Amino acid sequence: MEKINIEKKILRENDKHAFENVMFLTDKKKLCLNMISSPGSGKTTILARTITELKDKLRIGVIEGDIQTDIDAERIRATDAPVIQINTEGACHLSAPQISEALRTLPVDELDMILIENVGNLVCPSAFALGESGKIAVLSVAEGDDKPAKYPAIFAKSKVLLLNKIDLMAGGHVDFDIERATADARRLNKSLEVFPISARTGEGMSDWYDWLVESVRKGVD
Amino acid sequence: MEKINIEKKILRENDKHAFENVMFLTDKKKLCLNMISSPGSGKTTILARTITELKDKLRIGVIEGDIQTDIDAERIRATDAPVIQINTEGACHLSAPQISEALRTLPVDELDMILIENVGNLVCPSAFALGESGKIAVLSVAEGDDKPAKYPAIFAKSKVLLLNKIDLMAGGHVDFDIERATADARRLNKSLEVFPISARTGEGMSDWYDWLVESVRKGVD
Repeated sequence: MEKINIEKKILRENDKHAFENVMFLTDKKKLCLNMISSPGSGKTTILARTITELKDKLRIGVIEGDIQTDIDAERIRATDAPVIQINTEGACHLSAPQISEALRTLPVDELDMILIENVGNLVCPSAFALGESGKIAVLSVAEGDDKPAKYPAIFAKSKVLLLNKIDLMAGGHVDFDIERATADARRLNKSLEVFPISARTGEGMSDWYDWLVESVRKGVD
Repeated sequence: MEKINIEKKILRENDKHAFENVMFLTDKKKLCLNMISSPGSGKTTILARTITELKDKLRIGVIEGDIQTDIDAERIRATDAPVIQINTEGACHLSAPQISEALRTLPVDELDMILIENVGNLVCPSAFALGESGKIAVLSVAEGDDKPAKYPAIFAKSKVLLLNKIDLMAGGHVDFDIERATADARRLNKSLEVFPISARTGEGMSDWYDWLVESVRKGVD
């Protein structure tokens, strides 16, 4: 019981900051999306390609969460997008106070939207609200189509599921049943948008871009 | 500070049980390995193939950790190995008390060794000792060769690193520099054994089998 109460207290403290971030972003009328996935599902590649291909339509700022290193932030910096690196020093998720600080540092008024790349972890980040407008789950087809059933929380809470690396399915290098993964994820979350993409080849990315541009226009509900 | 103290207390409680598990396994002279990786790196496929191909040499029991579902335990059961399923109901790692209970249920005296498949998470399970003889890190080449640098804890603490899904590297479907990943991981852990494998095709598995058989013979130090 003590553990549960302590966890509640930590979450309460986090949620106070998350609420402040919601107020800040609402006031500024900025969309902010929190990308969550396992390590190596392709979040940074998706971000870099999205920023580059939408550069005439959307000004995107990035908050990069990593346990250590600034490898990902460097890759984003190469696109010329403003980026803030947060190193969690061992912690398995970003927390709302870290995002508050990053939002104070980013040139928010010059941006249309903010994309947060959370620490690579399919479990813990889904429990910590950051004040985001919505969560984006990323699942690489190399991880297997049983993941929505096995790790339900993030699929239940996301606005969008990006099924990445579909180029690996061509030629049968990877077995992944898109119908099964989509059906399992929609059982948890019937309004989930699912976009099968390859951030490497660009396949399927235009539907994701359309969703992003439309969401910035009207806000995520 | 409070959060840190609480974490220490939870870890202390865990470590008490982990120590009991060490005593139990030492007394029974059984090797027990704790497999840790991201979701979808191929732990269950590695386990199933290892159990099947070593069945005339080693009697292996399995403890399966999952947040929800018994999909993985069913796959292990198909090999006829004894398996205990632990559902963590949302928790992001196995803990030592859960392993104590599983060890009391498994037919340990009839086994040569126990393999634990932890919850799919490259971060949190590395912080919780289970009383295991050693940790086995699994990294799929689809996850990228920057992972030892970005998620150092598990690579620093493991006896073995299995670089899985090397069949995806043939034909250039996945870019992964084995030398880079190995060098980064060995910078953290100079005695780390690294086996590039494909649990799908069987490539490279025999070196891993030799290591396992030898470790059961002499124990992991």
